[in-house]
Amino acid sequence: MRIALLQMSAVPGDVAANLARIAEAAANAARRGAELLIAPELATIGYGAGDGLRDLAEPRDGAQVAGLAAIAAASGLAIIAGFPEQDGAAVYNSALFTDGHAAPVVYRKSHLYGDYERSYFAPGDPVATLAEWRGLKLGMLICYDVEFPENVRRLAVAGADFVAVPTALPVSPEAAFIAKRMIPVRAFENQIFVAYANHTGRDDHFAYAGISHVVAPDGGTLAMASVTEARVIIADIRPGDYLRSRDANAYLRDLRLS
Amino acid sequence: MRIALLQMSAVPGDVAANLARIAEAAANAARRGAELLIAPELATIGYGAGDGLRDLAEPRDGAQVAGLAAIAAASGLAIIAGFPEQDGAAVYNSALFTDGHAAPVVYRKSHLYGDYERSYFAPGDPVATLAEWRGLKLGMLICYDVEFPENVRRLAVAGADFVAVPTALPVSPEAAFIAKRMIPVRAFENQIFVAYANHTGRDDHFAYAGISHVVAPDGGTLAMASVTEARVIIADIRPGDYLRSRDANAYLRDLRLS
Repeated sequence: MRIALLQMSAVPGDVAANLARIAEAAANAARRGAELLIAPELATIGYGAGDGLRDLAEPRDGAQVAGLAAIAAASGLAIIAGFPEQDGAAVYNSALFTDGHAAPVVYRKSHLYGDYERSYFAPGDPVATLAEWRGLKLGMLICYDVEFPENVRRLAVAGADFVAVPTALPVSPEAAFIAKRMIPVRAFENQIFVAYANHTGRDDHFAYAGISHVVAPDGGTLAMASVTEARVIIADIRPGDYLRSRDANAYLRDLRLS
Repeated sequence: MRIALLQMSAVPGDVAANLARIAEAAANAARRGAELLIAPELATIGYGAGDGLRDLAEPRDGAQVAGLAAIAAASGLAIIAGFPEQDGAAVYNSALFTDGHAAPVVYRKSHLYGDYERSYFAPGDPVATLAEWRGLKLGMLICYDVEFPENVRRLAVAGADFVAVPTALPVSPEAAFIAKRMIPVRAFENQIFVAYANHTGRDDHFAYAGISHVVAPDGGTLAMASVTEARVIIADIRPGDYLRSRDANAYLRDLRLS
């Protein structure tokens, strides 16, 4: 399966502008043969939207989710993207999978990072959220979640072939280590694919580290964006190419917890 | 605390020769100010000893453990090293911590790799085995154990500042990835030090990948040997130098399992 990642420079608080960028990326990805587009964390609103993260949050039957589903239906590919989800009094930092037709599969970020996120969002439960698409099982995590090996393992044990990670990794002393070194190890230690879709550019709150990429089960990089470019990158997910690696590094088979 | 790692070319089945090499390394390390020496997996016997792994296995009160304790007492530093441990009918792939005086702390490898190991050894239980030394808490794992994030996490949650990993990583397509990329992530994701002490050279069964090294909590390399050199490398373990990294990457504080 061919997938596309949108490394995005979002407009904080402007849902229409962000949906337009996602729609443009979906059309670009579809032309290049992709069957799935992954956009970053809180892509519809911009990670740096500040109070907008709370004030513009919507339920699953709201306009942001409907807009993403409409883009999926129009472009003929599935979409994974982050959005701020209202549920009663609580707001979650969520991501959805939509094929444009079936009810979306929604994952709520379980590991919130820092005071900024914790001031707006409630954490979701740490659960394995999977969607099936074109014969592959896709798991979802959001940003800081993937830095905890337990969260990726939970998805791999549940049968994920592939983990999609909408993220908003800011520029920091450890950003390159997390993106370029930790993400490949998450793929290798579970013998799965990992796609890490980040923002780029800056807003009033953060500068983003880019380096969106796709890693194979052997830890190899299949595609990678630079720190600064806002663009769509493409990779092919072919689990059958990594049977030797899976056999030589049989972590899921050999793991003993007691 | 200053530590030393012996990247070793062991003589399969020749305990006296291997103890002599460890004694020489301990004297070298002590002259350079080290307070702890870490030797590889099954250092007393050679990982490639074949049936010797079973036939020369000894209990904790046997000559191999006594020899290592005597080297520690004579050189004035503590030693961590692997040895084949007999316990009734079972043989374990074990490592000990000895300061030369107190009873040794022994860890039994919980995750055996491949048919070679499984034909000689029983697995130990996956438990956190810690020793205290000069104000630091040291955890022990052996080779394949460290490739499972659960095993390192267990030690970190139990308070380890530092994990010592006697290993026998053979040359393979993934050896460099495991040593140079996975080990630094194990340190970073727990904000602890990791020391990975490997064999080098070859014997009748395996060629070894070397690359023994010490990694800091921020994922940085403090010391590293080449693939081929049999020698002692030195690094200083100073947890106080990494307080910023620990605060910015507070994985142990932020982890949520339910």
